[in-house]
Amino acid sequence: MKSTREILEGVQSGRLSVDEALDQIRGLTVEDLGYARIDHDRVRRRGFAEVVYCEGKTPEQSAEILARLAARGASNVLGTRASAETFELLKRSVPDAEYHPVPRAIVVRRGPERQIGSVMVLAAGTSDLRVAEEAALTASVMGSRVERVYDVGVAGLHRLLREVDRIRKSRVVIVVAGMEGALMSVVAGLIDKPVIGVPTSIGYGAQLHGLTPMLGMLTSCVPGSSVVNIDNGFGAGYLAHMINELGEGAHGHRED
Amino acid sequence: MKSTREILEGVQSGRLSVDEALDQIRGLTVEDLGYARIDHDRVRRRGFAEVVYCEGKTPEQSAEILARLAARGASNVLGTRASAETFELLKRSVPDAEYHPVPRAIVVRRGPERQIGSVMVLAAGTSDLRVAEEAALTASVMGSRVERVYDVGVAGLHRLLREVDRIRKSRVVIVVAGMEGALMSVVAGLIDKPVIGVPTSIGYGAQLHGLTPMLGMLTSCVPGSSVVNIDNGFGAGYLAHMINELGEGAHGHRED
Amino acid sequence: MKSTREILEGVQSGRLSVDEALDQIRGLTVEDLGYARIDHDRVRRRGFAEVVYCEGKTPEQSAEILARLAARGASNVLGTRASAETFELLKRSVPDAEYHPVPRAIVVRRGPERQIGSVMVLAAGTSDLRVAEEAALTASVMGSRVERVYDVGVAGLHRLLREVDRIRKSRVVIVVAGMEGALMSVVAGLIDKPVIGVPTSIGYGAQLHGLTPMLGMLTSCVPGSSVVNIDNGFGAGYLAHMINELGEGAHGHRED
Amino acid sequence: MKSTREILEGVQSGRLSVDEALDQIRGLTVEDLGYARIDHDRVRRRGFAEVVYCEGKTPEQSAEILARLAARGASNVLGTRASAETFELLKRSVPDAEYHPVPRAIVVRRGPERQIGSVMVLAAGTSDLRVAEEAALTASVMGSRVERVYDVGVAGLHRLLREVDRIRKSRVVIVVAGMEGALMSVVAGLIDKPVIGVPTSIGYGAQLHGLTPMLGMLTSCVPGSSVVNIDNGFGAGYLAHMINELGEGAHGHRED
Amino acid sequence: MKSTREILEGVQSGRLSVDEALDQIRGLTVEDLGYARIDHDRVRRRGFAEVVYCEGKTPEQSAEILARLAARGASNVLGTRASAETFELLKRSVPDAEYHPVPRAIVVRRGPERQIGSVMVLAAGTSDLRVAEEAALTASVMGSRVERVYDVGVAGLHRLLREVDRIRKSRVVIVVAGMEGALMSVVAGLIDKPVIGVPTSIGYGAQLHGLTPMLGMLTSCVPGSSVVNIDNGFGAGYLAHMINELGEGAHGHRED
Amino acid sequence: MKSTREILEGVQSGRLSVDEALDQIRGLTVEDLGYARIDHDRVRRRGFAEVVYCEGKTPEQSAEILARLAARGASNVLGTRASAETFELLKRSVPDAEYHPVPRAIVVRRGPERQIGSVMVLAAGTSDLRVAEEAALTASVMGSRVERVYDVGVAGLHRLLREVDRIRKSRVVIVVAGMEGALMSVVAGLIDKPVIGVPTSIGYGAQLHGLTPMLGMLTSCVPGSSVVNIDNGFGAGYLAHMINELGEGAHGHRED
Amino acid sequence: MKSTREILEGVQSGRLSVDEALDQIRGLTVEDLGYARIDHDRVRRRGFAEVVYCEGKTPEQSAEILARLAARGASNVLGTRASAETFELLKRSVPDAEYHPVPRAIVVRRGPERQIGSVMVLAAGTSDLRVAEEAALTASVMGSRVERVYDVGVAGLHRLLREVDRIRKSRVVIVVAGMEGALMSVVAGLIDKPVIGVPTSIGYGAQLHGLTPMLGMLTSCVPGSSVVNIDNGFGAGYLAHMINELGEGAHGHRED
Amino acid sequence: MKSTREILEGVQSGRLSVDEALDQIRGLTVEDLGYARIDHDRVRRRGFAEVVYCEGKTPEQSAEILARLAARGASNVLGTRASAETFELLKRSVPDAEYHPVPRAIVVRRGPERQIGSVMVLAAGTSDLRVAEEAALTASVMGSRVERVYDVGVAGLHRLLREVDRIRKSRVVIVVAGMEGALMSVVAGLIDKPVIGVPTSIGYGAQLHGLTPMLGMLTSCVPGSSVVNIDNGFGAGYLAHMINELGEGAHGHRED
Repeated sequence: MKSTREILEGVQSGRLSVDEALDQIRGLTVEDLGYARIDHDRVRRRGFAEVVYCEGKTPEQSAEILARLAARGASNVLGTRASAETFELLKRSVPDAEYHPVPRAIVVRRGPERQIGSVMVLAAGTSDLRVAEEAALTASVMGSRVERVYDVGVAGLHRLLREVDRIRKSRVVIVVAGMEGALMSVVAGLIDKPVIGVPTSIGYGAQLHGLTPMLGMLTSCVPGSSVVNIDNGFGAGYLAHMINELGEGAHGHRED
Repeated sequence: MKSTREILEGVQSGRLSVDEALDQIRGLTVEDLGYARIDHDRVRRRGFAEVVYCEGKTPEQSAEILARLAARGASNVLGTRASAETFELLKRSVPDAEYHPVPRAIVVRRGPERQIGSVMVLAAGTSDLRVAEEAALTASVMGSRVERVYDVGVAGLHRLLREVDRIRKSRVVIVVAGMEGALMSVVAGLIDKPVIGVPTSIGYGAQLHGLTPMLGMLTSCVPGSSVVNIDNGFGAGYLAHMINELGEGAHGHRED
Repeated sequence: MKSTREILEGVQSGRLSVDEALDQIRGLTVEDLGYARIDHDRVRRRGFAEVVYCEGKTPEQSAEILARLAARGASNVLGTRASAETFELLKRSVPDAEYHPVPRAIVVRRGPERQIGSVMVLAAGTSDLRVAEEAALTASVMGSRVERVYDVGVAGLHRLLREVDRIRKSRVVIVVAGMEGALMSVVAGLIDKPVIGVPTSIGYGAQLHGLTPMLGMLTSCVPGSSVVNIDNGFGAGYLAHMINELGEGAHGHRED
Repeated sequence: MKSTREILEGVQSGRLSVDEALDQIRGLTVEDLGYARIDHDRVRRRGFAEVVYCEGKTPEQSAEILARLAARGASNVLGTRASAETFELLKRSVPDAEYHPVPRAIVVRRGPERQIGSVMVLAAGTSDLRVAEEAALTASVMGSRVERVYDVGVAGLHRLLREVDRIRKSRVVIVVAGMEGALMSVVAGLIDKPVIGVPTSIGYGAQLHGLTPMLGMLTSCVPGSSVVNIDNGFGAGYLAHMINELGEGAHGHRED
Repeated sequence: MKSTREILEGVQSGRLSVDEALDQIRGLTVEDLGYARIDHDRVRRRGFAEVVYCEGKTPEQSAEILARLAARGASNVLGTRASAETFELLKRSVPDAEYHPVPRAIVVRRGPERQIGSVMVLAAGTSDLRVAEEAALTASVMGSRVERVYDVGVAGLHRLLREVDRIRKSRVVIVVAGMEGALMSVVAGLIDKPVIGVPTSIGYGAQLHGLTPMLGMLTSCVPGSSVVNIDNGFGAGYLAHMINELGEGAHGHRED
Repeated sequence: MKSTREILEGVQSGRLSVDEALDQIRGLTVEDLGYARIDHDRVRRRGFAEVVYCEGKTPEQSAEILARLAARGASNVLGTRASAETFELLKRSVPDAEYHPVPRAIVVRRGPERQIGSVMVLAAGTSDLRVAEEAALTASVMGSRVERVYDVGVAGLHRLLREVDRIRKSRVVIVVAGMEGALMSVVAGLIDKPVIGVPTSIGYGAQLHGLTPMLGMLTSCVPGSSVVNIDNGFGAGYLAHMINELGEGAHGHRED
Repeated sequence: MKSTREILEGVQSGRLSVDEALDQIRGLTVEDLGYARIDHDRVRRRGFAEVVYCEGKTPEQSAEILARLAARGASNVLGTRASAETFELLKRSVPDAEYHPVPRAIVVRRGPERQIGSVMVLAAGTSDLRVAEEAALTASVMGSRVERVYDVGVAGLHRLLREVDRIRKSRVVIVVAGMEGALMSVVAGLIDKPVIGVPTSIGYGAQLHGLTPMLGMLTSCVPGSSVVNIDNGFGAGYLAHMINELGEGAHGHRED
Repeated sequence: MKSTREILEGVQSGRLSVDEALDQIRGLTVEDLGYARIDHDRVRRRGFAEVVYCEGKTPEQSAEILARLAARGASNVLGTRASAETFELLKRSVPDAEYHPVPRAIVVRRGPERQIGSVMVLAAGTSDLRVAEEAALTASVMGSRVERVYDVGVAGLHRLLREVDRIRKSRVVIVVAGMEGALMSVVAGLIDKPVIGVPTSIGYGAQLHGLTPMLGMLTSCVPGSSVVNIDNGFGAGYLAHMINELGEGAHGHRED
């Protein structure tokens, strides 16, 4: 990476010993908890701190990792699929942590307050809200202004059509839809901005826990869209923010 | 079935011997070719002659079965997925047979000419025409007036919206769509008539040879629709005619 | 749509301002609850009010949406997959709401009482009753007379054959079947009316939670049938009523 | 196995050296061609010679294996999925070999002529004949009398019902069916004999190259049946003969 | 069916009125409980009473159907996948009913005591016992003598090999196996009797709840076997008894 | 849409008759060829002309649609999955059409020459080039500067690592990968720009014609990425250009 | 097997009677508990005692089998997927049994203490620990020295790269990874030792309970790796030990 | 990696300039052909040159890459799935290249001749030879002594049992099997060496082009085995050699 040259120049000039250089090249920005290795370099490398996926971890593990990230203070901190129990544990050491029950997410605000551009989150039905809110919260915590238009599935197309002008004004659009997920194609056909499809597991039988809208969105007859995993509001919000940030214009590559 | 009573009364009155009655009950309307048993009772029972699915049969077999049905003359005769070779063989014995190359179908006109109500056939894209034409031909051969609106996929929604009035005036609507098949949901949401979805195998990758639009149509968020097999234009046209016929009003059950 | 002309003529004549016309074109018949946008235009457009799929919504959300639809009073109101808790909440504001525990559905009667034509509901086994009753209730609430013939699976074919005359007299037949779903093909082969197959998730192992009868019904060797999603009694009942209504004869398109 | 005692007694008595006994225990009835090990012990162990599945082998390999088995002369010899080219090669060394083009099988008659009991082969449609004939030929070559009833799919149920008496008189019934494969359940429900279902790949789309009838037959609501692989007429015929042979009454276990 | 002739002769001779004959032809042996139609003709037609699959039925429904079958007394009565609650309800009216907790089955003994031939039940592992016992109980209740060899999976092949002689002496062999189900192929290769494979859902991950051994058994390289649904011990036991009964020799078709 | 207000104001002011307004609202920008409806409004609505997917269309149909779009001259014209035969037909009427054989695409240059920002296309292996080149061509034809880094699969990670600086300097990255598709996750973890994954069908067996890398990319442990259909280089290039265009800074919504 | 010669020589020399020899050949090292046949020969044949998979067995069954194996004392004893209840039962008769709660395993130490070579266990994330620990414990109980490097998923590649030297020093590497499982390919590309991939079910949606990383690992673009079942830490540890043992150099085949 | 220290020490000592060091760190051992980046570092890193998978590459591309690798001369060179056309092209510049038609592989011998330990390749049937020979050739070209035992499928178990002693004497065993793949479990249960399963696509219907044996091998009830992709003889041979090499005893990690 870019700074490897600097490290080598440090060695050349004698400013760095070989061992110091080795450490830096190997990324000493990793904090080792035994069961986890926190990647504190991620803010520099990717623009946002490691996000903690709490499912499959014990509440103790999740809370400790979140606390360490918050202590670092390099950016806002986000934990997804977090239980209330994890939140209670975390609050003891990080009293200003927030819990968002609909998307089941924990936020600790440590980064600069920003509200750039705008990310539009559409949801086909009321049942898709949990996922839509995860997308909206993620983009917002990362620094995007977020707008929401919910329950505009294709069964009542005019509900969507009357919002088209507003949708077209955002920089990037997230479409959250279960059942057959047709909303994504319809939206993408009406606008000229990138569309991120989030299939949800809402439905039954042939819906196959979200595989059907996922496959449908991937084979959409409308270009200009792409797809994230089923129920992955987080991934959609993260990507939407990245795209939104590009729209800030003077944005170059991070390390310049 | 209803006529069983009549057969039994024939036996009671002595008009029928037991063996004659047995034959009738067992359906002597079957013509046995060894490799096939032609079901001549089907016109009485279902309102239309047996339709011959020519795939997997030798041209000789298909041509002979079609010729036998034509000879019976009880209704129009239809052969689907028929090769030109089958048609050439058939024409020797049935000179007025017709071949329709786009849907690869053979027709022999033997029934009354009818053009009842109307069946609307929509196709999402130009690539779906082969299936759409199979549906249109089937309904037409059975006696329905058929209208076609092609290439109205959701990528350019206004192409569809300007035809909505016309679509709403038909009795039943067939929607033929490949890719993700979103057109079916959109159409069903705009009208108050039964919609029959025909997923097609047009597409690639995650389209899974038509499984994706098939699953999508089955999990549509819009009620009032149902689905037939992938690329099954024939099945859709057949069902559409049946529904269309109901709209003729005074229609009772066939054998009364 | 048709009335767009009227709106434009209203603008031309000065009866409507541009803003009023915009609202009407954009469908101000939508009622926005934040988490839901109730589509009050649906009765005009599709002949029946929006049906509320209660799964994935909170009881509070379901109850409020149902209450709003009932208040509008434009047609009967139906909530499917509704919990008893949702019903208890709804009853506070809509005391005449009914709960049907077998299909887990809520009904509020606000439309005209009708019992047109007839819809026949067949169920292959006793275990399929929940789905069959959802189909029957839906068609009935929409205005169809409904008949039921249950437990007539192909393991004991004579149970079905003795009911064939009665089945043939209905306008449209719903076949509800789990296991391999063979009943649908057998029924469709015996009658001349549209058949709607409803695969159920009754079975285990290779039954794949209903995928097996769903695929089997879609590939039926008998034309004249189509298929709805697994366990989707509601969709079958809705479509059956639409088809049944066509049989009322003088029925034209809704807005004429 | 049973004869191990005999071998051991041979060693004990000095009739067999240890090395001879080892050879016998290890099955010196194997003939090694390098690319194949012909299992000449199979007649003793299973009652019929090894059957050669010719697909995936070169014609030379298939022909040589068949010739070796024929030379042994212990029972009839069967090669399935054999090309005409394989047959031409074989005929040079085995002039009395027969080729059956519909099931694409080679037979060399070396066993006793037998026609025990009876095996009934049903086929739902004309397109299923290739598989049905493979089943019929296999059972026949093994020594069963075979009867055939073809094109009796459930679309015209009376074609089947009139043959029920005849079907009931056989010892075991093979049902060959593509599409959704419903015929197997219907047949099994009408008789009191074992039914072997052979799903075929006839159909398209949701038929999934035979997976759909295979799954349907496995989840049949009618007990008394079991299933072999898609298009596996050979396997069905082989098993049917084994069952048929049990009906010969005095049949004990082979080596007694 | 065969007795149709007798009915017709009854009409011819005046012994039966037309209406009586119609009833008989239509199968008045059906007892209608509203939610179920008990098929009392099944003993005559198939040799054993309808077996009640209790899953998906309420305990009240299951218990009543079982009681009615027991009251008829035509053969032993079997209820599968039955809860203890169903059994408690049944015992009130049928005090001699038995509950078998491992296979979760209810038996009421009303038929003749028989122990014909023998059916061998093999299980690959201790975890497969529930399914193996369902197979063994079913065959036994129908009249077969049953032998069991359990925990002989291929991981320790010698456990199986030492039982081969005993296995070869039975008329038909059921192989119950989870994981990859290799035991069925190995057993079938060693004997000359029909083998019925029962894949079980024992395993995890790529075992796919039993689909993997099911597919493996269906594609076995060893002929002479066939497969029933995953965990379907009942179906295997039922079929095994049917086959075993054929071995009784003088057995003709049932109604002669 | 936005211009509806203008149309209405035209009617209000008398500039437009009602019929003229209806035509405009209904989108008279559609050109109807019978088998196709060319959506000339798409440039206005989406910023680029309709792209013609030539597979499944006859060469005559594809060539005519491309010629009509070229005649309109509103933007560059792109035909994907085009045969050389289609190109030969097109060249007769559009002599300056170009054929790109690796991605099998046709281009007619009619739009402004632009080379904005940059889109990076990575390919894991040499076998993925066809898809990578389709992506690169699409983005380029739409107006993006495109860079390529090919054959940097994870089997030799250092090939990728030495290009990371260059990759990080682009605005959006397309990763084309077959086999297991691991490259996408690795790339996304190293940069702070949006990543579009394109799974390819390169591989065999468990690769499932691209389903495996598609599923893998969708479940990537690295956020900031999304996925298009298997082998869909076109979709990736289209979306990448859209995102790249956002980076031009002052970009507002199109119709302002 | 090899010792068959010895047995035969025993018979030849008169040291063994035929019946004794039969018993030995048939493997009298099997201990029959009715529901289980303990394979005490396994230590001789495979180098380690039968491992007990406790899922699907009752705690009583598992505990008894483990106790019998421990009593034999031939090698360490391992029970996987064991409940605490099983452990409590076992401790009564085997007080020195150990319970490992993370991998849910029971160990009874009866074999020689060994710590040969080394097995490296990598885990992509904290959520994969349960499986990783099962692998580590298994290899360790069998006699391998085990090293662990956890939470080195590809999202932060430098966490892995800094451990490459250490990883390269082990004899065999187990990679435990959920999500898309890309870690296995990356690791295999960096080292020259056998890699065993263990896909885990950690993830959701398109991760398909582990099928996605399993398929991905199987289609890895990097040779030198192979795959065990989803979540099968035990299988990976077992195989890793076997491979590790080969590295002990003078190791010949067991029975020499 | 280890040599990074050396590079850094070179910089420190002035032996290397910063730019030279950067090149070395970034891996200048990559040779860039535009469409391919040849990884000449692979011999050092992994012990064997990059293997060229020729499918999906043009013959020109494959031949050039192979020629470059041969020119480097660092180890033997292997091209898999290579056409005769590729070989003809290659021979022009590399006259001593060999073509192996059964496994369709190209070999150029440039490494030291070795024949270490032994790798055993088993094939279940004659149809599996193409894959088995790819495995055998790969291991042999890498330096292993290879033994072959073919056509020992479980249908004739004694063919396998008589070879067990010989199999047990090898260091690692590859089992190549199509159909249901049961051979792998049986073999693994009999020996104490690592087993690598290679499922093949030999079979039809439920064999699912090899998915069925692949899933079966992954869920084998016998530990000590692992699985590579369907038909991936190359991957199995590569891994087998790696394991075999471990058995050479004094083998440490490569760079020491």
